[in-house]
Amino acid sequence: MDNMTLIAIISILTAGLTISIGVIAPALGEGRAIATAVNSLAQQPDASATITRTLFVGLAIIESMAIYCFVVSMVLIFANPFWNYVISETAGK
Amino acid sequence: MDNMTLIAIISILTAGLTISIGVIAPALGEGRAIATAVNSLAQQPDASATITRTLFVGLAIIESMAIYCFVVSMVLIFANPFWNYVISETAGK
Amino acid sequence: MDNMTLIAIISILTAGLTISIGVIAPALGEGRAIATAVNSLAQQPDASATITRTLFVGLAIIESMAIYCFVVSMVLIFANPFWNYVISETAGK
Amino acid sequence: MDNMTLIAIISILTAGLTISIGVIAPALGEGRAIATAVNSLAQQPDASATITRTLFVGLAIIESMAIYCFVVSMVLIFANPFWNYVISETAGK
Amino acid sequence: MDNMTLIAIISILTAGLTISIGVIAPALGEGRAIATAVNSLAQQPDASATITRTLFVGLAIIESMAIYCFVVSMVLIFANPFWNYVISETAGK
Amino acid sequence: MDNMTLIAIISILTAGLTISIGVIAPALGEGRAIATAVNSLAQQPDASATITRTLFVGLAIIESMAIYCFVVSMVLIFANPFWNYVISETAGK
Amino acid sequence: MDNMTLIAIISILTAGLTISIGVIAPALGEGRAIATAVNSLAQQPDASATITRTLFVGLAIIESMAIYCFVVSMVLIFANPFWNYVISETAGK
Amino acid sequence: MDNMTLIAIISILTAGLTISIGVIAPALGEGRAIATAVNSLAQQPDASATITRTLFVGLAIIESMAIYCFVVSMVLIFANPFWNYVISETAGK
Amino acid sequence: MDNMTLIAIISILTAGLTISIGVIAPALGEGRAIATAVNSLAQQPDASATITRTLFVGLAIIESMAIYCFVVSMVLIFANPFWNYVISETAGK
Amino acid sequence: MDNMTLIAIISILTAGLTISIGVIAPALGEGRAIATAVNSLAQQPDASATITRTLFVGLAIIESMAIYCFVVSMVLIFANPFWNYVISETAGK
Amino acid sequence: MDNMTLIAIISILTAGLTISIGVIAPALGEGRAIATAVNSLAQQPDASATITRTLFVGLAIIESMAIYCFVVSMVLIFANPFWNYVISETAGK
Amino acid sequence: MDNMTLIAIISILTAGLTISIGVIAPALGEGRAIATAVNSLAQQPDASATITRTLFVGLAIIESMAIYCFVVSMVLIFANPFWNYVISETAGK
Amino acid sequence: MDNMTLIAIISILTAGLTISIGVIAPALGEGRAIATAVNSLAQQPDASATITRTLFVGLAIIESMAIYCFVVSMVLIFANPFWNYVISETAGK
Amino acid sequence: MDNMTLIAIISILTAGLTISIGVIAPALGEGRAIATAVNSLAQQPDASATITRTLFVGLAIIESMAIYCFVVSMVLIFANPFWNYVISETAGK
Repeated sequence: MDNMTLIAIISILTAGLTISIGVIAPALGEGRAIATAVNSLAQQPDASATITRTLFVGLAIIESMAIYCFVVSMVLIFANPFWNYVISETAGK
Repeated sequence: MDNMTLIAIISILTAGLTISIGVIAPALGEGRAIATAVNSLAQQPDASATITRTLFVGLAIIESMAIYCFVVSMVLIFANPFWNYVISETAGK
Repeated sequence: MDNMTLIAIISILTAGLTISIGVIAPALGEGRAIATAVNSLAQQPDASATITRTLFVGLAIIESMAIYCFVVSMVLIFANPFWNYVISETAGK
Repeated sequence: MDNMTLIAIISILTAGLTISIGVIAPALGEGRAIATAVNSLAQQPDASATITRTLFVGLAIIESMAIYCFVVSMVLIFANPFWNYVISETAGK
Repeated sequence: MDNMTLIAIISILTAGLTISIGVIAPALGEGRAIATAVNSLAQQPDASATITRTLFVGLAIIESMAIYCFVVSMVLIFANPFWNYVISETAGK
Repeated sequence: MDNMTLIAIISILTAGLTISIGVIAPALGEGRAIATAVNSLAQQPDASATITRTLFVGLAIIESMAIYCFVVSMVLIFANPFWNYVISETAGK
Repeated sequence: MDNMTLIAIISILTAGLTISIGVIAPALGEGRAIATAVNSLAQQPDASATITRTLFVGLAIIESMAIYCFVVSMVLIFANPFWNYVISETAGK
Repeated sequence: MDNMTLIAIISILTAGLTISIGVIAPALGEGRAIATAVNSLAQQPDASATITRTLFVGLAIIESMAIYCFVVSMVLIFANPFWNYVISETAGK
Repeated sequence: MDNMTLIAIISILTAGLTISIGVIAPALGEGRAIATAVNSLAQQPDASATITRTLFVGLAIIESMAIYCFVVSMVLIFANPFWNYVISETAGK
Repeated sequence: MDNMTLIAIISILTAGLTISIGVIAPALGEGRAIATAVNSLAQQPDASATITRTLFVGLAIIESMAIYCFVVSMVLIFANPFWNYVISETAGK
Repeated sequence: MDNMTLIAIISILTAGLTISIGVIAPALGEGRAIATAVNSLAQQPDASATITRTLFVGLAIIESMAIYCFVVSMVLIFANPFWNYVISETAGK
Repeated sequence: MDNMTLIAIISILTAGLTISIGVIAPALGEGRAIATAVNSLAQQPDASATITRTLFVGLAIIESMAIYCFVVSMVLIFANPFWNYVISETAGK
Repeated sequence: MDNMTLIAIISILTAGLTISIGVIAPALGEGRAIATAVNSLAQQPDASATITRTLFVGLAIIESMAIYCFVVSMVLIFANPFWNYVISETAGK
Repeated sequence: MDNMTLIAIISILTAGLTISIGVIAPALGEGRAIATAVNSLAQQPDASATITRTLFVGLAIIESMAIYCFVVSMVLIFANPFWNYVISETAGK
């Protein structure tokens, strides 16, 4: 049962690290983009339509990277192919 | 009972690290966004509606990343599939 | 009794690290937001109502992340499911 | 007696680290807020009432995070549930 | 079965690290580009067509690097040639 | 006598680290606050009463965090409950 | 079979690290270049042809470095000479 | 005699680290405060009385933190309760 | 076969690290140079010939350093003298 | 003789680290203070008496911290109480 | 054959690290110099002869340092005196 | 002879580290002071006497800290009391 | 033959590290000096003789430090006294 | 012969590290000083005599620190008292 435990441990650890490290840069990048956008809105309220549209498209692109990490993290917890293989192996014994 | 303990240990450690590392960037990003928003409000009080709306949408997007981490952390403590498997395994023996 | 001790140790360590690492970014973010708000109040005293309201909503959102960490830390000390399981296990022997 | 010692060691170490790491960010954040507030007072002495009030509310919110850490640190030294459990266990033997 | 487990462990760990480390720089770089673009839009609303086009071409180039990482991460989880070789080896025994 | 020594060692190490790490941020924060205050006094000598009062209240709040660390450090050297327990245990044997 | 496993492990780990570390600097460098280009376009829309051409040549040069890393990473996963040698060695036995 | 040596070693190491790490921040903080004060004196020589007084009170407060560290360091070398206990123990044997 | 494996492992690891670490600085340096060039083109479109020529000579010099690293990396994978020696040694046995 | 050697080793190492780490911050702080003072002298040569006096008092306060470290370092090399105890112990045997 | 392998391993590792670490600073330094030169050309196109000459002399001096590293790296791979000694030793046996 | 070697090793290592780490901050601090002084001389050539005098007094104070480190380093190589004790001990046997 | 190998290994490793770490600061320092010189030439083309002379004397002084490192690195590879001693020792046996 | 080898190894390693770490700060400090001096020469060509003299005195003081490190490094390679002692010891046997 040792192998199974090792895979479980490393899956848990990696899942946590992946999402927590993976949100660092998107959060900082989005914070920067929003901050500048808010600042620009104050300088040029007339351009608010263009600014807001560009901002939200940009945020979606950045957010997509945080979601890559979330997907990997979820896959490691709930749909881990290595874990499934080992479980079926153990069950088949 | 060793396997169970190892999984428990790593779950506790990862749960703590995930949430504590995971809030670093969102908190900094939100702090930056709020700071700029407050500053912009002082420069252009007339645009407060647009600024505030853009800010809160942005904060929600950033907050979502902190919540991904909180979700992973809670899942590891209270709904950990690896732990459940091992517990059921132990009970079934 | 070894397993129990290991879980206790890791719970103590993680509880401490979670809260101490977890307050780093919220405290810095809030410090930044407050600093800018105070500065903006000095520039535009007339907008103090809007500024203060936006600031306190923002602080609440950032504070929520410190509280996630505090919750996880408290759960690990006083309502740790892994510890409870092991204790009940030991008692049941 | 080994388990008891291990728990004692880790409690001492964590208590120290929690408070020493935990005050880093609040102290920096408060230093920044106070510095800006003092600067703003010099620029706009008339707004001193609003500035001072906003500052002290903000400091209280940041200080609360240092106090979370102090609470966890004190709990680990003087009201540690894991230590109490082990002591009572040892006494009951 | 030891070899298989080792390869599984290292694949999980590397998959998580690759995507979480790999999005750091693209997210920061995109955040910066978007922030400047939004700022430029506020300064020169007339050039919005050129700015937006240059921005989106640039974002696509940066995003490509995050996708390299995602591809490697997915390959390691779902189409790992080393894992496949070992599995077929084990099955063939 | 091994347990006693271990607790002594970790108490010494933690006491030193707690105070030395714990003064980093307060000292930097206070240095910043004082620097700005001195600068503000030069810009607006008339507001010296308000500035000085706000400064000293702020310094007291920051100093409190250094004192939390000093208290924990002193407790670990001179009033360590874990050490006292072990000593009494040893004496009672 | 130990040697084979070791080479597999190190290939996986290195492939992941190579691409994830290798995109850090290109992504940051490109982000900076795009940000400045967008800013320059807003300042001098008339020079957009020269600016865009210089930008895209530059991005291609920087992108080439990310592609060096991707090539090495792919080679390590799908065309690893060391792995091939060991496999053929094992097959030939 | 092993325990005694261990306590001696850790006391020496901690004493050195405590004072050397502990003076980092106070020295930087004081350097900053003095630099600003000197600068302010050049801008507003008439306010030199107020500036100098505020500066020296501030330096005393920051210096107090370096002295906490020096006290702990000296206590660990010349009045270490753990060392005294072990010595008296050894002598009493 | 142990020696061979060790050399293979270290070659793989070094090849990956060499290229991934080696492109960090060139990419950043080129990003900076391109950013400034683009900015200068916007300020002085008349000097575009001189600026572009100087830029591309400079980029070639910086790129040469990334190519040194790529050469070493390729040599380690495909023309490694140590590996060749060991292979011929093994074959000659 | 092992204990003696260990104490000697740790004393040498700590003495070196204490002074080398301990001069980092004072040197930087003094460099900053002197730089600003020199700059201020150039701006306001008439205030040179006040500036120079404040500077030298400040340098003395910062230098005191480097001297704390030098004292601890010298004590550890030439007047180490732990070493003296062990030597007298060995001699008395 | 163990000694030979160890020397081979360390030579490979050092060769890779030397060149990859060794190009960091030259690349950054050259990037900075080129960026400033390009900027200066835009400000003062008349001085382009002097600027370009000074720039290329400077780049050559900086490049020389990257070449020192490349030389050491090549020596370690293709003309390593320690490796040659060991090979001849082995051959002479 | 083991003890002697250990002390020799640690003395060599510490001597090297002490001087190399110990010159970091003084060199940076002096570089900063000289840079500002040179700059101030260009702004106010008339104050060159006062500036130069203040600069050289300051440099002497900073240099003193590098000399503390050099003294400790030389003492550890050429007048190491621990080494002398062990040598005399060995000779006396 | 073990001693010989160890000395060879450490010489290779140190030679590589010495030159690669040793060129970091000179390259950055020279890059900065050249950048400022080029900038100054653009501002004041008339002073080009003085500027160029001061620059090249300065570069020679900084380059001397990179050459110290190159000398040590070459000595360790081609004229290593420790290696020579061990070789002669081995030959004399 | 083990002791001798250990001392040789540590001497080689320390010699390399001492000079490579030891030139970091002097090179940066000198780079900064030269950069500012060159800049000042462009601003005030008339003060070139004073500026150059102050610069070269300053460079000599900073260079002295790099030379301390070079001296220690050379002493460790060519006039190492610990190595000499061990050699004479071995010869005398």
